[in-house]
Amino acid sequence: MMLKCAVAGVPFGGAKGGVTCDPTKMSINELERLTRRYTYMILPLLGPEKDIPAPDVNTNEQTMAWIMDTYSMLAGYTVPGVVTGKPFELGGSKGRGYATGRGVAYVTSEILQRLNIPLKGATVAVQGFGKVGSNTARFLHQEGCKIVGVTDLSGGIFNEDGIDVPSLIKHTNNENYISGFDGGEFAADYRKANEKLIRSKVDILIPSALENQITEENAPGINANVIVEGANGPITNSADMILSKKGKTVVPDIVANAGGVIVSYFEWVQDVQAYLWTEDQVNQRLKQVITEAFLKVWNIAEKYETDMRHAAYMEAVRKIVEVTRLRGIFP
Amino acid sequence: MMLKCAVAGVPFGGAKGGVTCDPTKMSINELERLTRRYTYMILPLLGPEKDIPAPDVNTNEQTMAWIMDTYSMLAGYTVPGVVTGKPFELGGSKGRGYATGRGVAYVTSEILQRLNIPLKGATVAVQGFGKVGSNTARFLHQEGCKIVGVTDLSGGIFNEDGIDVPSLIKHTNNENYISGFDGGEFAADYRKANEKLIRSKVDILIPSALENQITEENAPGINANVIVEGANGPITNSADMILSKKGKTVVPDIVANAGGVIVSYFEWVQDVQAYLWTEDQVNQRLKQVITEAFLKVWNIAEKYETDMRHAAYMEAVRKIVEVTRLRGIFP
Amino acid sequence: MMLKCAVAGVPFGGAKGGVTCDPTKMSINELERLTRRYTYMILPLLGPEKDIPAPDVNTNEQTMAWIMDTYSMLAGYTVPGVVTGKPFELGGSKGRGYATGRGVAYVTSEILQRLNIPLKGATVAVQGFGKVGSNTARFLHQEGCKIVGVTDLSGGIFNEDGIDVPSLIKHTNNENYISGFDGGEFAADYRKANEKLIRSKVDILIPSALENQITEENAPGINANVIVEGANGPITNSADMILSKKGKTVVPDIVANAGGVIVSYFEWVQDVQAYLWTEDQVNQRLKQVITEAFLKVWNIAEKYETDMRHAAYMEAVRKIVEVTRLRGIFP
Amino acid sequence: MMLKCAVAGVPFGGAKGGVTCDPTKMSINELERLTRRYTYMILPLLGPEKDIPAPDVNTNEQTMAWIMDTYSMLAGYTVPGVVTGKPFELGGSKGRGYATGRGVAYVTSEILQRLNIPLKGATVAVQGFGKVGSNTARFLHQEGCKIVGVTDLSGGIFNEDGIDVPSLIKHTNNENYISGFDGGEFAADYRKANEKLIRSKVDILIPSALENQITEENAPGINANVIVEGANGPITNSADMILSKKGKTVVPDIVANAGGVIVSYFEWVQDVQAYLWTEDQVNQRLKQVITEAFLKVWNIAEKYETDMRHAAYMEAVRKIVEVTRLRGIFP
Amino acid sequence: MMLKCAVAGVPFGGAKGGVTCDPTKMSINELERLTRRYTYMILPLLGPEKDIPAPDVNTNEQTMAWIMDTYSMLAGYTVPGVVTGKPFELGGSKGRGYATGRGVAYVTSEILQRLNIPLKGATVAVQGFGKVGSNTARFLHQEGCKIVGVTDLSGGIFNEDGIDVPSLIKHTNNENYISGFDGGEFAADYRKANEKLIRSKVDILIPSALENQITEENAPGINANVIVEGANGPITNSADMILSKKGKTVVPDIVANAGGVIVSYFEWVQDVQAYLWTEDQVNQRLKQVITEAFLKVWNIAEKYETDMRHAAYMEAVRKIVEVTRLRGIFP
Amino acid sequence: MMLKCAVAGVPFGGAKGGVTCDPTKMSINELERLTRRYTYMILPLLGPEKDIPAPDVNTNEQTMAWIMDTYSMLAGYTVPGVVTGKPFELGGSKGRGYATGRGVAYVTSEILQRLNIPLKGATVAVQGFGKVGSNTARFLHQEGCKIVGVTDLSGGIFNEDGIDVPSLIKHTNNENYISGFDGGEFAADYRKANEKLIRSKVDILIPSALENQITEENAPGINANVIVEGANGPITNSADMILSKKGKTVVPDIVANAGGVIVSYFEWVQDVQAYLWTEDQVNQRLKQVITEAFLKVWNIAEKYETDMRHAAYMEAVRKIVEVTRLRGIFP
Repeated sequence: MMLKCAVAGVPFGGAKGGVTCDPTKMSINELERLTRRYTYMILPLLGPEKDIPAPDVNTNEQTMAWIMDTYSMLAGYTVPGVVTGKPFELGGSKGRGYATGRGVAYVTSEILQRLNIPLKGATVAVQGFGKVGSNTARFLHQEGCKIVGVTDLSGGIFNEDGIDVPSLIKHTNNENYISGFDGGEFAADYRKANEKLIRSKVDILIPSALENQITEENAPGINANVIVEGANGPITNSADMILSKKGKTVVPDIVANAGGVIVSYFEWVQDVQAYLWTEDQVNQRLKQVITEAFLKVWNIAEKYETDMRHAAYMEAVRKIVEVTRLRGIFP
Repeated sequence: MMLKCAVAGVPFGGAKGGVTCDPTKMSINELERLTRRYTYMILPLLGPEKDIPAPDVNTNEQTMAWIMDTYSMLAGYTVPGVVTGKPFELGGSKGRGYATGRGVAYVTSEILQRLNIPLKGATVAVQGFGKVGSNTARFLHQEGCKIVGVTDLSGGIFNEDGIDVPSLIKHTNNENYISGFDGGEFAADYRKANEKLIRSKVDILIPSALENQITEENAPGINANVIVEGANGPITNSADMILSKKGKTVVPDIVANAGGVIVSYFEWVQDVQAYLWTEDQVNQRLKQVITEAFLKVWNIAEKYETDMRHAAYMEAVRKIVEVTRLRGIFP
Repeated sequence: MMLKCAVAGVPFGGAKGGVTCDPTKMSINELERLTRRYTYMILPLLGPEKDIPAPDVNTNEQTMAWIMDTYSMLAGYTVPGVVTGKPFELGGSKGRGYATGRGVAYVTSEILQRLNIPLKGATVAVQGFGKVGSNTARFLHQEGCKIVGVTDLSGGIFNEDGIDVPSLIKHTNNENYISGFDGGEFAADYRKANEKLIRSKVDILIPSALENQITEENAPGINANVIVEGANGPITNSADMILSKKGKTVVPDIVANAGGVIVSYFEWVQDVQAYLWTEDQVNQRLKQVITEAFLKVWNIAEKYETDMRHAAYMEAVRKIVEVTRLRGIFP
Repeated sequence: MMLKCAVAGVPFGGAKGGVTCDPTKMSINELERLTRRYTYMILPLLGPEKDIPAPDVNTNEQTMAWIMDTYSMLAGYTVPGVVTGKPFELGGSKGRGYATGRGVAYVTSEILQRLNIPLKGATVAVQGFGKVGSNTARFLHQEGCKIVGVTDLSGGIFNEDGIDVPSLIKHTNNENYISGFDGGEFAADYRKANEKLIRSKVDILIPSALENQITEENAPGINANVIVEGANGPITNSADMILSKKGKTVVPDIVANAGGVIVSYFEWVQDVQAYLWTEDQVNQRLKQVITEAFLKVWNIAEKYETDMRHAAYMEAVRKIVEVTRLRGIFP
Repeated sequence: MMLKCAVAGVPFGGAKGGVTCDPTKMSINELERLTRRYTYMILPLLGPEKDIPAPDVNTNEQTMAWIMDTYSMLAGYTVPGVVTGKPFELGGSKGRGYATGRGVAYVTSEILQRLNIPLKGATVAVQGFGKVGSNTARFLHQEGCKIVGVTDLSGGIFNEDGIDVPSLIKHTNNENYISGFDGGEFAADYRKANEKLIRSKVDILIPSALENQITEENAPGINANVIVEGANGPITNSADMILSKKGKTVVPDIVANAGGVIVSYFEWVQDVQAYLWTEDQVNQRLKQVITEAFLKVWNIAEKYETDMRHAAYMEAVRKIVEVTRLRGIFP
Repeated sequence: MMLKCAVAGVPFGGAKGGVTCDPTKMSINELERLTRRYTYMILPLLGPEKDIPAPDVNTNEQTMAWIMDTYSMLAGYTVPGVVTGKPFELGGSKGRGYATGRGVAYVTSEILQRLNIPLKGATVAVQGFGKVGSNTARFLHQEGCKIVGVTDLSGGIFNEDGIDVPSLIKHTNNENYISGFDGGEFAADYRKANEKLIRSKVDILIPSALENQITEENAPGINANVIVEGANGPITNSADMILSKKGKTVVPDIVANAGGVIVSYFEWVQDVQAYLWTEDQVNQRLKQVITEAFLKVWNIAEKYETDMRHAAYMEAVRKIVEVTRLRGIFP
């Protein structure tokens, strides 16, 4: 997270914390009391200028609302900036829900431009159709890309003429899964569907499901020339080397899916400034920030003749070292 | 005030406080010392994140300057955001003086659009020619409305061809009252003038003087199809029901005159951000915020087939309940 | 500094502090420890809402970084707004390096417009080619002015067809001094070169080197009709009176070179808002603020039939007195 | 309370606050949550240096524990000094439970000495046998006084040879009321018993039950020469004048029952010093403080030839005026 | 530590923290900088009302001085109460060096009294002659006990007529170890010496060296009727059961060696009160506090017919549970 | 002051501050407002843990009351410990008025004991009869010393049989000066009286008036064997050397008149502890502290074979160096 922020120029670091419990076995009341007590116990570390929690697996907008309320009551006044990912009514940001997908789409657009592949009409395969995958597909579809394959836990949909993404999203909103959608050829075995998808003859492959999906086994069979990491760590190290040798262009997660943390930062800025942005402003500034990060990394890769993943780490480490050097060690 | 803020989406609540005294019998020095001591005594409740006073009857920009100075000196540094309605030189906002009138004009423009009445050429009667009434008249006149009647404590001016509002304002700047202005027919008895005005055959009636001006007695005689509440509570409950039955459209105070508190909020935002907005920016953002509030209420009224006053309360209560539910009760 | 801020509408005051030492004889480690201890000792006076240091002679971006780090570590979280002039990586502002020169150019453009002298093709002599002089020349050259003379400690370059300023800047970036540049006639004796420059037959003379360069001796020989003070106090009092009698127009330092402190203020605003501006935004807002200050002073000079220096002081004192009167004396 | 503290030299003032509710109808959980929320809401007024609650009717040690815990958790560390009357385990004081009674006994001993009545063998009638009355009787019995009459809501016990107070206390600890005790003549009608008690032929009468017990009706029949007010306001104004004319010596409540607040102050001191006193130290210092207060008032009464009640008010007002004069009015 | 404090009535809890490093390989300068940085990093947890470090293995008075200075400089004023065990010149307590030994001696005196063994002339064997053992021996010798055996890493000294403890201390001050002292029979093999010592025919055995010295192997051979734990945990669980069955009286560490933390608490109290105690006051109050703790535990053991170790745990847990119950769980 | 505190073991430093004005020409109202504004301006440096003002020439108890009130109101609660020398009603200390004189008397008693001169019957000459001189004379007279000479600005009183000090104090309370007192031979020329006094054949000479009274001119004629400096710096450097050679014993000001600052410290301690001491407690603890300081210095003088002045400086510097060394330099 710290590296991702450093590349994007977001003035945040990285830390995690949690409580060992099974929230599915707790009442809403127990969850609230647990969250408030936990907030109290880590209080000296929290604050809009210190550590700013955001939701992750098993926590959500409501959890953030409780943390924010507890911190605020202890402070004596409302402090929306102490968390991000909170409900819009309590100072949350417009556009945060689909920010990662939107960022992946922006980055995809940029990489195609660099490689002289026209965005309009480009063919795309998307692995995973959750928050990231579906929104990525939606925005690329809006830009004129042809989404020819999509998979999720229920299987895969393939359609060489391009899937009607808005209809598919409407379908999954109701049915949770893509299975049952009749806008293409359906493959019910999700492992086979995934393997088929990864080998699709497309311009762009966007793994946006889980870690370690592209391995040394299936990497040699990849046809796409561009892989954009929508998920965190979808390509294993050894697969990465295979792709590199084959001359594939990989946009690493640290750049490609930074949209989420960038809009978290925007939410905090809006809270600090006590003035909310419109959805358009959020999206436009997200585009500006993620594009700039992409270009910085692209240029380093060009200059040092390396791949984008190494370039991204170089930039992240350079930034952190530079700041540490400038500030010095206190006391 | 809390309901007004909830409808407008302004993150403020509502509270009042004061000192029992007769400021007209006190020297400026006594007023200053009284204000400073009072500020000191309510200090634990004040602050840019807690309670932010603004001037009301018998207090003014100078009072706010003293409160701000006292709070700031006690804090150890300048805190402009602790009050609104302060002089521009100390961090006050451009455009605050006429904000309520401007807001009434924006809302009038919106309601006409919804009712398919062209703004240009619409006839208007304005009750009261103080800060709210005169500025409402000024802005509507600028937009091409015909202001055919105006009243104040000195009587009423009526002119079917439209009053020359800029000249009338120049006149009242010098003479305090509208009497003596020769741009129309003058009626010296202000009660009769008022009754005449309320029954005018106009498109829009804008009561912007005192409470309880439209009652069950004069309500049945109202000809205007649109009444926009520039003042707080100018229509009695029973009059409201009469107007409702007659199919008149009333834009309630909670929406119509929210311009004042919206720009108070803008002043606070500018102080929090340490960067002042231009007059244009203030006016444009006021338009955006009050129009959005109007539309929200309009849509609720449409959806639930009720009048705008009930719709406004529905929205205000919904917002407050939602926020309270999300935050929960601490501890 | 306080007067300069008052004219420009920047909400800062003025103060200086320092340590008696010879930094050229100290190691980087000793400088760091000295700076940190000094910061600690003046701590109760520092803070983004109290006193905000900026670099001056013998201190630089690194010094500001140490002060910022010390203050932040003592506060318990990063407080970029406690200093300005810090490195961009730590929250410094784009465009700060050349802000004073850019401001001088904006002001020059404004004064010419008032005097009906076309900016394009106007002839300019610039004394000093450091941070202020070189950037002033650069921006005026971009606007189409003809820079016909430039001096520094190594001598002077004169070229009636206009010096190629970008080339000269490239030269001085490498050689530190202008001597050796072959884009004009070179005069090696810097005193003679200076006197020649001051007497140049140009439209505009911009002294941007040291104090007291235009004296009662050389003032009578000045040919330029407009003198813009890039440096602080380049004209002696008696020279000022001579120029005044000769009908020359002098734009005083308090207005002309305010660009530096204006962008210092912008840096602080960006830190308070936790959101950095683009270089374009900085420049455009600098233009807006310094032009407004120029116009305010110009109009006062017109209204009270005085020169711009007196007008500037009138405005500065008026502002400070007004604010003090409004706030009152506490307790 | 403020006057009582002023006479005793205790650096406290006086204030009351509460919640309108019926605690007998609330669960312990509801009481805890109500207390914590109330504490939160008055938080800006609370603190060991600001306002220090103590229990009164319907609140007790447990309520104080909750207030203390809530305040402490909000402060971030344990702050025992924010309340007095808390459990000993949480920083409460030894000897606080019987402090008022002990103080009444000390004051009785002092007044007898002044009037040359030997303490040993003096006869005493005590109205009320709650916390104050029973402890007063206990300590006077220890000093050799003969307690010849005691009343409570269940009636009265009279024994000219002196009641065995320790046995009576043991009895009431078990039975709550004095009825059923066989160490004297029992009168079951508590009104008649009270009237009999008030008219007893004793040296000292100690009303320590409710307000307005000695009225213009029964005052003329009082035989005791000394009345010590254990309760607050047991003598009506008119009764007071009758007693004064009859030459009776009344020790007013403001002096006589100050023992409670004095030990509250001691509890706070122990918390401030983070070191608890032994029971002996508490009692010895209570004696010193209440005796000093008594003597101050006695001497003023002598000097100004007035009764002790007036003398006590004179001293209290003098102290408050003097302190206010010395400090002045801020700002 | 928490249990020990609970038994002694000291309002402290228990926590540990440290840095993984080898201080023997670091310069004094490195140690200072490491200590200061560590202090900075745990700052939010430190403070005289929060967590109060004290020295342990590998840290000493100097370390405490650095922590105190760092905390104080960050606070802006001197805060001696943030650590205990600091040098006397910086607010440390008299008598802290030998407090544990003194406490062991007090407790030994109390247990003998309970068992009707005269202190004067009682025979004692002391295992270990470091800070605890030597001071225990010193104070018991002062009270007239006969110290007949002492061991350390260099071996053991045995003398049935009683060792001259002051001379032995003088010896170890010079030579570090007891070997070489000629005031008794010397046994050079420290294992054998220890076994001999543990089986000595004495009234009291005081293991004050390391953990797990009395085991199921040597426990059956113990002749002393009283064992007082000067060290932490010198008796294993199984040995404890053997001694219990044999009817030996063990005073557990939690009571016996609480003198150290009690005087740490006194040091903190002196700092909070800003007034230092004399050595006599420290010793007298130590005696009072540790004796009271002993008696509380003794009485519980009597009442519940258990050994002192169980009684001590019962009291500690009772105290903590009671306080937790009274305060409740927040929020 | 810093050295004086170091010798006495008082944890204070030394600093001075003031306002350039002539208080004799200002109204009480102007003095109050000046004091409050001055307090506000040095606020970041003030506080019971930072800098604690005390009255000096031209300021008094009332000034301290204003400073205390201003600081307290700015803090939000009463902070008596921010000043010393305030009125008793606001938390001042008993016994502060005569503390310096009392301290001089204690020190005189100690030095006589060391020199084997009996205190009872010792003859004393006191220069100056202000707060220090008169109280010194009073306490020594109480101890049985014979005060044979006293001077002030009005002249000198000499009486070989011992002056009746209580009568003389009663006289000066009424008449301000000693002239007119008939309990001895009066010398009206104060210069001559002083010279006579300095040369008196007495055991002890106590200069307690102004600086530089004992010079190289009159030093050779001094007969007293012991000189105790009640004033600050009454002996010039050269006179000091003469006295040293003559074998006279001088108790330096840094030790002799430390009573004032010691009781200032006691006042602060009482405020920190929120519990006032009795007059007896103050005097007894003063005796203990000043005697200990005297003994420390006496022993150093013995050990290093030097005079007490050098010994006092040695101790003061040792203490400060030791503390600085232990704490180290931060950051």
